[in-house]
Amino acid sequence: MQLSKQNFQERTDKVYDAIVIGGGAGGLSAGVYLQRYLLSSLIIDKGKARSFWMQELHNYLGLPPDTPGRTLLKHGKDHYLSVGGDLLNAYVEEVVEEGDIFVVRVKIGRQDSIYAEFRTKYLIAASGIIDNLPFLDDMQNVYEYAGYNLHVCLICDGYEMADKKVGIFGKNQRSLEVAFSLGWFTPHITLFTQDMFDVTPQFRQRLEDYGYELIEEPIEKFIGENHQMTGVQLMNSSVVELEAGLISMGSQYHSGYLSSIDIQRQGENLVTDKMCRTSHPRIFAIGDLKVGLNQVVIAAADGALAATGIWQDIRREKGVKPRLDKIDSSFSLVS
Amino acid sequence: MQLSKQNFQERTDKVYDAIVIGGGAGGLSAGVYLQRYLLSSLIIDKGKARSFWMQELHNYLGLPPDTPGRTLLKHGKDHYLSVGGDLLNAYVEEVVEEGDIFVVRVKIGRQDSIYAEFRTKYLIAASGIIDNLPFLDDMQNVYEYAGYNLHVCLICDGYEMADKKVGIFGKNQRSLEVAFSLGWFTPHITLFTQDMFDVTPQFRQRLEDYGYELIEEPIEKFIGENHQMTGVQLMNSSVVELEAGLISMGSQYHSGYLSSIDIQRQGENLVTDKMCRTSHPRIFAIGDLKVGLNQVVIAAADGALAATGIWQDIRREKGVKPRLDKIDSSFSLVS
Repeated sequence: MQLSKQNFQERTDKVYDAIVIGGGAGGLSAGVYLQRYLLSSLIIDKGKARSFWMQELHNYLGLPPDTPGRTLLKHGKDHYLSVGGDLLNAYVEEVVEEGDIFVVRVKIGRQDSIYAEFRTKYLIAASGIIDNLPFLDDMQNVYEYAGYNLHVCLICDGYEMADKKVGIFGKNQRSLEVAFSLGWFTPHITLFTQDMFDVTPQFRQRLEDYGYELIEEPIEKFIGENHQMTGVQLMNSSVVELEAGLISMGSQYHSGYLSSIDIQRQGENLVTDKMCRTSHPRIFAIGDLKVGLNQVVIAAADGALAATGIWQDIRREKGVKPRLDKIDSSFSLVS
Repeated sequence: MQLSKQNFQERTDKVYDAIVIGGGAGGLSAGVYLQRYLLSSLIIDKGKARSFWMQELHNYLGLPPDTPGRTLLKHGKDHYLSVGGDLLNAYVEEVVEEGDIFVVRVKIGRQDSIYAEFRTKYLIAASGIIDNLPFLDDMQNVYEYAGYNLHVCLICDGYEMADKKVGIFGKNQRSLEVAFSLGWFTPHITLFTQDMFDVTPQFRQRLEDYGYELIEEPIEKFIGENHQMTGVQLMNSSVVELEAGLISMGSQYHSGYLSSIDIQRQGENLVTDKMCRTSHPRIFAIGDLKVGLNQVVIAAADGALAATGIWQDIRREKGVKPRLDKIDSSFSLVS
């Protein structure tokens, strides 16, 4: 059921089989599978999954190719609640390991916050990442286009940028390297440093060899209408026409709550095995948080894997007990 | 485009980037990703993917939990064709490796068959498995219930069988072991041997300890109405009431076309790495054919992985060439 400030205390004495941190595609899929394995689960969602920002999913099999990410999330949430899962909108501050149990400390509500603790045997870290966006004085101007034709994922949206004039917005020279992959889709590439960093003469020459343009003047704002970005206006008032954008400014990883737990990482990603189990046997990591390709359908599959891994563990441990009494005699030959 | 006996010859001179064998969830997802990477692809589908038989997908995130498998496949096929993929309904007889190219020999049409060859750099084996069904004189009687409440997958449908009287239909003693996993969901279990095999006294005792019933009398037919099986009628005319069934008779693996190619297997499954690449560097295997959990959403994710692996390979090989000519000057500051 949907938990809230009003009713969450009904669940604070419970030890869940699994708490899933994050209610994106991965977390919801895990939740559906956990419930269908007759395990108890709680999804704690701070809102705004990465796919929430995607105005059109173009490559999620089974959904029409213009389905908004939030539609997928809405369906998934309804699905999860329909199979009896618990869902709480809250922010996870810390996870503490106490013997065989994890204590999950959350803050409920941004205003008049309440602090609460939930307990679980297994943990699924499904809290993902969120993309850094260009920082302008008027951030509303960025939100106007981000997730529309101002993309954050080359794998997802390279196709949408094919043969278009695309601007790449980086945070350092290395982040601009994505230009050479974007070059697979379009030769019309302009890179923006926003005067935040310098690039080497060698890199400058390489861009020239490929025919890519480098603009170092800071950006005043994105221009366009109806969420379709058509260019950027620079601080010097000149305008660069564009047909799409690719933001390559890195991401925030939402895994700070695991800081007290020793767990293997590769960069900021959590290392997992084929069932999405981390180096901690009772912590699984799925979706963008784990090492691997960041795709919505992969996060959903990860959820199935992690939930199955947990079910296999618990089933092995608890087992199905032999019964000395024979089963209900009505379950026999009747005629 | 949809290929047929009439127009397939337009494509027989072409060397595709990838041919996908199998048009189920895995193959269609791979196809969508391949096309969106601007690669050329052909899906060869013999029809009747495993999910085609599933009357209700209950755990595919984003689709309402009663969506028929064929709806997912229909959406996926439309999606694939909308991004320019080629699709041919045909049966793959053989794949032959000729240098850097695979020649895929197909039979088009069950009647007045035409034989044709297609060429590709990469191959994705997505042809999956099909479940063996109980063999009765009247197979129509089996089809009446299979995929409704006569299930083939415990992982998928254990939840649907919770606390129900479930019959398990096995092909040997080992296949009946699934009872102890099904026991997680329901204690009301009857196992049927159909007098096709014997079980050991130890196994018999174990069933008794768990309170499961063993019926060795052959089955005459399933009974029920509106695709809901309500029991079985035995050859001796007695009736066993059931509320659901689980078929555990193994599967046919559709990978005979690979018989001339040396490739690592584990049992009948193909062994793959994290990107679904087999031991052959240009053959990928996805979905139920590969080692791993058989789930529709996992097959769809596998498609994304395999297509991405192929794109990375081809991109590395072909690259994006530096251009000595500067790009179109209109892609510059304009005001």
